[in-house]
Amino acid sequence: MPSIFSRIIAGEIPSYKVAETDTCYAFLDINPLSKGHVLCVPKKEVDYIFDLTDDEYVDLQLFAKRVAFAIKKALPCKRVSVAVVGIDVPHAHIHLVPLYVGNELNFNGNHLSLDESEMRSIADTIAQMME
Amino acid sequence: MPSIFSRIIAGEIPSYKVAETDTCYAFLDINPLSKGHVLCVPKKEVDYIFDLTDDEYVDLQLFAKRVAFAIKKALPCKRVSVAVVGIDVPHAHIHLVPLYVGNELNFNGNHLSLDESEMRSIADTIAQMME
Repeated sequence: MPSIFSRIIAGEIPSYKVAETDTCYAFLDINPLSKGHVLCVPKKEVDYIFDLTDDEYVDLQLFAKRVAFAIKKALPCKRVSVAVVGIDVPHAHIHLVPLYVGNELNFNGNHLSLDESEMRSIADTIAQMME
Repeated sequence: MPSIFSRIIAGEIPSYKVAETDTCYAFLDINPLSKGHVLCVPKKEVDYIFDLTDDEYVDLQLFAKRVAFAIKKALPCKRVSVAVVGIDVPHAHIHLVPLYVGNELNFNGNHLSLDESEMRSIADTIAQMME
């Protein structure tokens, strides 16, 4: 079954379209964090954004960069922030959230307190996995 | 005066380094939202991430993708989420936040209620600015 985003891209579900290429589609988030909150979606239906190939990932990111420029020109925001959460809809998407006040993309999460040995251990473990 | 990130990259301020290339540097956020919260920074000191050239932007994004893969291999997270807020430190950086529970990157911001004509107007205004 196609994702809700694939149905939007196909026109089966209406959307406030902002931009489209052969491979990407951008439209307003219907539950916006600020005016001009846009979702940029690859037409290829992939759940986890980092499962896109490098070429597909670059294509999507450059599309989002173009949309971010357009948002900043169109609306009186200070800048455009970016988030990829990826838990809500199983079809990769980039949130572009215009910042007017500056705190529109604050996080609820509690910050952790980790001691130095934990920090060192985490950093080393990740570093060893770099390819 | 160099940014705090430039001083970290130069080694003047210690960091928990995760990865480095000629152009990019990744290290643990010292105020992490979850274990393995990493910042990916271009060595070029630019405030707003979308002011990077396309080549620089792609280079940084592909670096962040590699780091995200390493985080997911290194730590028992479900996936790695992404955020670029860009208000805190005036040196562009990508937050990579491993999700273990799934809600580590929830947003504080209140969602807006916009009616259909507002949504249409916003979408059209942005669409007209696409280059």
